[in-house]
Amino acid sequence: NSVVQPLLTDLYQVTMAYAYWKTGKMEDKAVFDLFFRKNPFRGEFAIFAGLGECVKFLNNFRFSCSDIAYLQEILPNVDQGFWEYLSQLDASQVVTMSAIPEGYVVFPKVPLIRLEGPLPVIQLLETTFLNLINYASLVATNAARFRITAGDGVQLLEFGLRRAQGPDGGLSASKYCYIGGFDGTSNVLAGKLFGIPVRGTHAHAFVNSFSSLDDELQVNPEAVLPQQPKLSFCQLAMSWLTKISPILNILEHETNKGELKAFLAYAYAFPRTCLCLLDTYSVIKLNLNICIFPFMDIKLGYPIIYTLDTQGIVVILHSLIYFTGLVTNCWNTQGTTFRVECCNGRNNSSLNFYTLMCYCFPHRSGLPNFLAVALALNEYGYRAIGVRLDSGDLAYLSRKCREAFVLIADQFESPWMKKFTVVASNDINEETLISLKEQKHEINSFGIGTHLVTCQKQPALGCVFKLVEVNGEPRMKLSEDVGKINLPGKKSVFRLYSEDGLAILDLIQLCSEKPPEVGKKILVRHPFIESKRAYVCPYKVELLYRDYWGNNGLTQSFPSLQELKKTASDSLKTLRQDIKRELNPTPYKVSVTNEMYNFLHELWLKYAPIGELS
Amino acid sequence: NSVVQPLLTDLYQVTMAYAYWKTGKMEDKAVFDLFFRKNPFRGEFAIFAGLGECVKFLNNFRFSCSDIAYLQEILPNVDQGFWEYLSQLDASQVVTMSAIPEGYVVFPKVPLIRLEGPLPVIQLLETTFLNLINYASLVATNAARFRITAGDGVQLLEFGLRRAQGPDGGLSASKYCYIGGFDGTSNVLAGKLFGIPVRGTHAHAFVNSFSSLDDELQVNPEAVLPQQPKLSFCQLAMSWLTKISPILNILEHETNKGELKAFLAYAYAFPRTCLCLLDTYSVIKLNLNICIFPFMDIKLGYPIIYTLDTQGIVVILHSLIYFTGLVTNCWNTQGTTFRVECCNGRNNSSLNFYTLMCYCFPHRSGLPNFLAVALALNEYGYRAIGVRLDSGDLAYLSRKCREAFVLIADQFESPWMKKFTVVASNDINEETLISLKEQKHEINSFGIGTHLVTCQKQPALGCVFKLVEVNGEPRMKLSEDVGKINLPGKKSVFRLYSEDGLAILDLIQLCSEKPPEVGKKILVRHPFIESKRAYVCPYKVELLYRDYWGNNGLTQSFPSLQELKKTASDSLKTLRQDIKRELNPTPYKVSVTNEMYNFLHELWLKYAPIGELS
Repeated sequence: NSVVQPLLTDLYQVTMAYAYWKTGKMEDKAVFDLFFRKNPFRGEFAIFAGLGECVKFLNNFRFSCSDIAYLQEILPNVDQGFWEYLSQLDASQVVTMSAIPEGYVVFPKVPLIRLEGPLPVIQLLETTFLNLINYASLVATNAARFRITAGDGVQLLEFGLRRAQGPDGGLSASKYCYIGGFDGTSNVLAGKLFGIPVRGTHAHAFVNSFSSLDDELQVNPEAVLPQQPKLSFCQLAMSWLTKISPILNILEHETNKGELKAFLAYAYAFPRTCLCLLDTYSVIKLNLNICIFPFMDIKLGYPIIYTLDTQGIVVILHSLIYFTGLVTNCWNTQGTTFRVECCNGRNNSSLNFYTLMCYCFPHRSGLPNFLAVALALNEYGYRAIGVRLDSGDLAYLSRKCREAFVLIADQFESPWMKKFTVVASNDINEETLISLKEQKHEINSFGIGTHLVTCQKQPALGCVFKLVEVNGEPRMKLSEDVGKINLPGKKSVFRLYSEDGLAILDLIQLCSEKPPEVGKKILVRHPFIESKRAYVCPYKVELLYRDYWGNNGLTQSFPSLQELKKTASDSLKTLRQDIKRELNPTPYKVSVTNEMYNFLHELWLKYAPIGELS
Repeated sequence: NSVVQPLLTDLYQVTMAYAYWKTGKMEDKAVFDLFFRKNPFRGEFAIFAGLGECVKFLNNFRFSCSDIAYLQEILPNVDQGFWEYLSQLDASQVVTMSAIPEGYVVFPKVPLIRLEGPLPVIQLLETTFLNLINYASLVATNAARFRITAGDGVQLLEFGLRRAQGPDGGLSASKYCYIGGFDGTSNVLAGKLFGIPVRGTHAHAFVNSFSSLDDELQVNPEAVLPQQPKLSFCQLAMSWLTKISPILNILEHETNKGELKAFLAYAYAFPRTCLCLLDTYSVIKLNLNICIFPFMDIKLGYPIIYTLDTQGIVVILHSLIYFTGLVTNCWNTQGTTFRVECCNGRNNSSLNFYTLMCYCFPHRSGLPNFLAVALALNEYGYRAIGVRLDSGDLAYLSRKCREAFVLIADQFESPWMKKFTVVASNDINEETLISLKEQKHEINSFGIGTHLVTCQKQPALGCVFKLVEVNGEPRMKLSEDVGKINLPGKKSVFRLYSEDGLAILDLIQLCSEKPPEVGKKILVRHPFIESKRAYVCPYKVELLYRDYWGNNGLTQSFPSLQELKKTASDSLKTLRQDIKRELNPTPYKVSVTNEMYNFLHELWLKYAPIGELS
């Protein structure tokens, strides 16, 4: 990305660099830690991502002549010598970087990246590193959470480009969602640049663009076809529609013929990969004089829906709203003799006067149309793939679709139809996934956009970058609450595992300490609460840091996106289920050695001046 | 931005384009509207932004050979003719675009952009247009809301780069926040690329990197200086610290000398623009055995803080949490005879066991240190600029700072000190700004990051792109709720103004209708509620659409960033105050003409099939 360059930083990094330079501190050897303080999304883990981009940035860190000229313009009273220093600066030559491998599960307070080098140089890296790590890790974590919630049996597709925060936000989202556990994206450029599988079929506009049914499409049958169909593609579909309508309990004229034409056109263009979007048209029942009173049934907490049907009969309908905002298909009539089944609703808790003014029965138009096209296509030797639902009660509709697939498959001895894919999209978040699971959905694939890429639940991770050592002396920022105190000094981190391969805890210690040993009992401590201590005897010990950048450049070959995806998946497997669950997860333990504990607390007391009470 | 290219789109746009091409619809003339359905941030307006980027995209819309090669790879069964069609496609030659000017206040349902051209071509523009408009408009609107809330008297700076969604997210945020009403950014690259004023001084790490006070800095006095100071810069500052400490009621040894050195170093580097961050060090009172009980005083809703001071005296402290999550400085002792004044807190509603374990008194270290440096600097003929606060109760601390400025200024006859700038940062959102105002803060400048750039309150705008006409025939998507029904046909939009220059309403009508006339009464209608009608007699009528792209390219010169900023500010001034207010704003009226109303409802009934009750 061409905008990832030294000037993609906060001005104060440059003014600080100058003040360091001006006061003779440009060769001070500094150690900075990059870490976050709180897990995102009310969870107890995060996925570390963005490291590869940081390495690229480090490798290219040089100020251009136009950069220097611009800085001279905005900082007019700075010594010329500083501009010479900056223009000769090559961060890749003077910086050392250790980090946890990209894709690992990581936890608060544990430094993800440790950077060493001249104080002004590391300072100049801060903002860009934070920018590159913060969103990447946040969205990878979000994707991992969606994956955990959805389970391994379904396909997850990232559909967020249009709602992402700018072009690069969209690309980053595609990339890091893939690492975090998604199977593909709708973003073509992400496919081209990163090799991520790309998916997509058609939108509502496609269906809308067709209005009438004509008979122009001549499908070329697959070569292997035993016998040529006698009817045209369109006639075939119409004849199938006539056959299946009574089985699906709909009236043939209820299906929209523009939609049928659109499905035929799509099948004609993509006979081998036909997947149709079902919910463009609705069969409207009670389509006159419908109004909704904007008051709530206090007892039930449901909005009351009041309507007049075409005969002027009063119908009162209840629409149940889940805590997630999904409206179910539960309608009950009161004071009349008939029941109306309906499914509709938006993932929107502010149900107002307009909401639900017309009622959508996509399985009454889209579904029969699709099945007719699929059966026609079959006669030409092609198998359709499935359907997409983009509105309404996805659990209910997916079950209705599956029922219809099975019904038609059995009726016409076409067992392959039972396995049609159901793709669902439309404002899906973690809660929706949980709710859909509880309702035993029949969805095979989810297309997830806004909530995934904008990380609606928590749109920023809040990584920080703190000075922990200058010229071998530890540094500590004391102000404010303990949650914000950083662990001073140059540190190592080990992950200790139990015999079953699960991670027990992360242990932070000083670099000067001996690493923990397999089979040897060690005392581990909470960094701030004196009484929280435990002995642990690790079955396996892993040094979390790898050296990514030495004075001679990249010291590790950088993994491919596929490898990063596997790293994330493997790393998540080492985490106990209760740490990963959505509701009240157990915190993972981040501990320090006894030596680190004492070092930290002595330094704390040393730095903290003693006040006087008056 | 190099990633803004035709492949930055959803795959289904390409598959649809192929299906259109394959079924002979590539020359169908389509009209699409881009609009949003709901105002962001629970407000009643938005600022339209991102149009300039769309124009650039349109101008460069050509598929490269490698794009075509990649598409061929992922869509293997597509006719060769389509790839030839795509590779020759130049959107800039066949598309017409009208739009509301960038920077205007805009409202739901009103098409912001109207695109006309061949169906597959416009379809291929959809995702990229949405991506470019959605975040730009969202963040510009957010910035405008912050500006309205903060008032015109303060400076607003965007500090969000490190928390933005990727590098480009950071750049877009800087640009569109500036349009929306911010005065500057910390993002240097945004300054270089867009000419936005850049601001920044130093961070906590800068202060932390200094530990001892030495006497090395030789400040060159301003040439105009009447007499040379006798003491060195450092000695001067120390002597001033001795003089001001009793006035500020602190003990000289309570101030941190590493911090003093850091301020001296910064002043030495930037004698003309010295602005110091005050809250790195805290004077700790009661620094031993402090613990906080994690239970709440039910009656007050405050957490109870319980502590033992160094003499073992029990102190019970109350810490008031506002609804915004700010913790105030209100401590009350109970059962003992002394009061402790304290200020601290995080903008964090989950105050837990650790929070507040140490107490921060930045005005007891940072403030005296800064004042000593400012007074020393003054003797060399330089005037310091001010201070930055990055934690704690910003209203309280800013008032304390101002009090100290005035006190010291009066004492030493230095009235210029009274006007020191106070910059505040730290997780500021709209609610914080309101709360700070109520508490009569003394802040001159706000640095705002996370909440601004991630649009935490609502991280996606949700613009959509709908087909409204094909070959002169209107199109309408019916499914789901009325809120999602689009207005069919090719339309014009007029903004009607009253005599005082305020906008009365936006009027949507068919292109074939006569424009409304000044001084002529017209009937305007709610698009969906039959009974909501009104007459209006406009004092001024403005056609909102300008032609931005004709078949020959750009038809308007595109305004500069400064001009866009002014457009936004002017446009906001035409909006009534009650529409702009934060709490329960009045909705702005978006209306249709009587003709448009009838057209819409006839079409609706025509499209909506009549079901049968059984």
